Amino acid sequence: MMTDNATDRAGEDISPARYFIYLSYDGSAYHGWQIQPNGISVQQRLNEALTTLLRTPTGVTGAGRTDAGVHAKMMVAHFDAVLGSMTCDTLADKLNRLLPGDIAIDSIVPVRADAHARFDATSRTYHYYITRRKSPFAARYRWRVHTPLDMARMNEAARLLTRYTDFTSFSRLHTDTKTNNCRITLAEWRQTGDGDMIFVIRADRFLRNMVRAIVGTLYEVGRGRMDIDGFTRVIEGRDRCLAGSSAPGNALFLSEITYPQSIFIQ
Amino acid sequence: MMTDNATDRAGEDISPARYFIYLSYDGSAYHGWQIQPNGISVQQRLNEALTTLLRTPTGVTGAGRTDAGVHAKMMVAHFDAVLGSMTCDTLADKLNRLLPGDIAIDSIVPVRADAHARFDATSRTYHYYITRRKSPFAARYRWRVHTPLDMARMNEAARLLTRYTDFTSFSRLHTDTKTNNCRITLAEWRQTGDGDMIFVIRADRFLRNMVRAIVGTLYEVGRGRMDIDGFTRVIEGRDRCLAGSSAPGNALFLSEITYPQSIFIQ
Repeated sequence: MMTDNATDRAGEDISPARYFIYLSYDGSAYHGWQIQPNGISVQQRLNEALTTLLRTPTGVTGAGRTDAGVHAKMMVAHFDAVLGSMTCDTLADKLNRLLPGDIAIDSIVPVRADAHARFDATSRTYHYYITRRKSPFAARYRWRVHTPLDMARMNEAARLLTRYTDFTSFSRLHTDTKTNNCRITLAEWRQTGDGDMIFVIRADRFLRNMVRAIVGTLYEVGRGRMDIDGFTRVIEGRDRCLAGSSAPGNALFLSEITYPQSIFIQ
Repeated sequence: MMTDNATDRAGEDISPARYFIYLSYDGSAYHGWQIQPNGISVQQRLNEALTTLLRTPTGVTGAGRTDAGVHAKMMVAHFDAVLGSMTCDTLADKLNRLLPGDIAIDSIVPVRADAHARFDATSRTYHYYITRRKSPFAARYRWRVHTPLDMARMNEAARLLTRYTDFTSFSRLHTDTKTNNCRITLAEWRQTGDGDMIFVIRADRFLRNMVRAIVGTLYEVGRGRMDIDGFTRVIEGRDRCLAGSSAPGNALFLSEITYPQSIFIQ
């Protein structure tokens, strides 16, 4: 029987197909997601492992980048490969054995040949954790502050974020992005089970450093150094110098990325 | 008015009193609790901080020792000091600022002059965590195993531990302890909220390395390499060579120490 796909002599499918890889990582030891000349990145580790296992140079394209020290409860990347008789689950198992303990593959799924981890993503969600306790076990993943924070006031300010689209005030000064427009659909502080605070923010896209700049500015609101009018002026000023300092990266987690169902096969 | 305590010219109490200090620590960076010639210990860090803050050489006596890499959700130690006008809470705050992020003081409380953190302890409880998942965030505090474990069988074996008192089989070969007798009052595997396993074990005292040797042996039961009769023979054999290898220290937490109410002041 004729098919559209090429097959080798043993009848195995040898035309490359596209896959999404879902992973999580502790970013403490990495210079961020993105490959760069100096320093080890998560993307580099993943490319190396795939290249070793598939015995052909293989590179992944991520849904976005995380900065140095920032973690991911969920990151998504796409790659093209000929898996042959290997199942996605087997490849995920092999990757997990090969990759260091701070990077875990959660699943690999087939997608349409034109699916793109970055351009097809419909939303990204980040989590940011703040604590006032000194906890040896949470220290790695929390920003510890010494001042009481007014969470109601911080939520009042956070809600304003969903009314604007230009976030130049919270972007890096010199970047090559064409637009600083983002649609923020959720921006909310919540109490965690152990009395800490978590900030949940969702948007179609984020500018570099944006979440940490927003958290750093909401912190100023929370400790009473900036009022709601002041926060509005920061957003409307479109000037990074008006915002607060960036909050530390170790407490930031990329936590969810969504895609339209239509790009998945099956 | 005459009192039993010496006072200085300003009327402040200058006779030393005894205190219990409750702390928690991530043991990853330490060569255990106990001061030793080579390597940094938690006890040493604590002595240094107290000596700095109280401006006089001050040493703590711990409720026990934890091995290198083992953590404590709760450790207790006693020390003698003249706090003067400083409250226990103030001293705890100052210690927390001075100590590194992986050691946290939870509280300091006054006790009777003859109270002893080690000899007065009535029970110690340890937690041990096992996971089958690869999780970048839990890796630091879990033993990851690759075989399915039969928890019911492991609990059947664990229950046997409460029927014996001589645990020579789970002690280090050459130690200077006078007796290998312990009264184990609780030994139970439970499921954690995220699908991992936790072993909870409580006794009046533990021998060095005992919990890790017990967990390593129960692991053999869980994966089917040892049956209940075999486990009984290990206990009754009083021979360390019969037991399984010690489970890794990074997943072990000293989690509770109890004292009679009578040793506390107020």
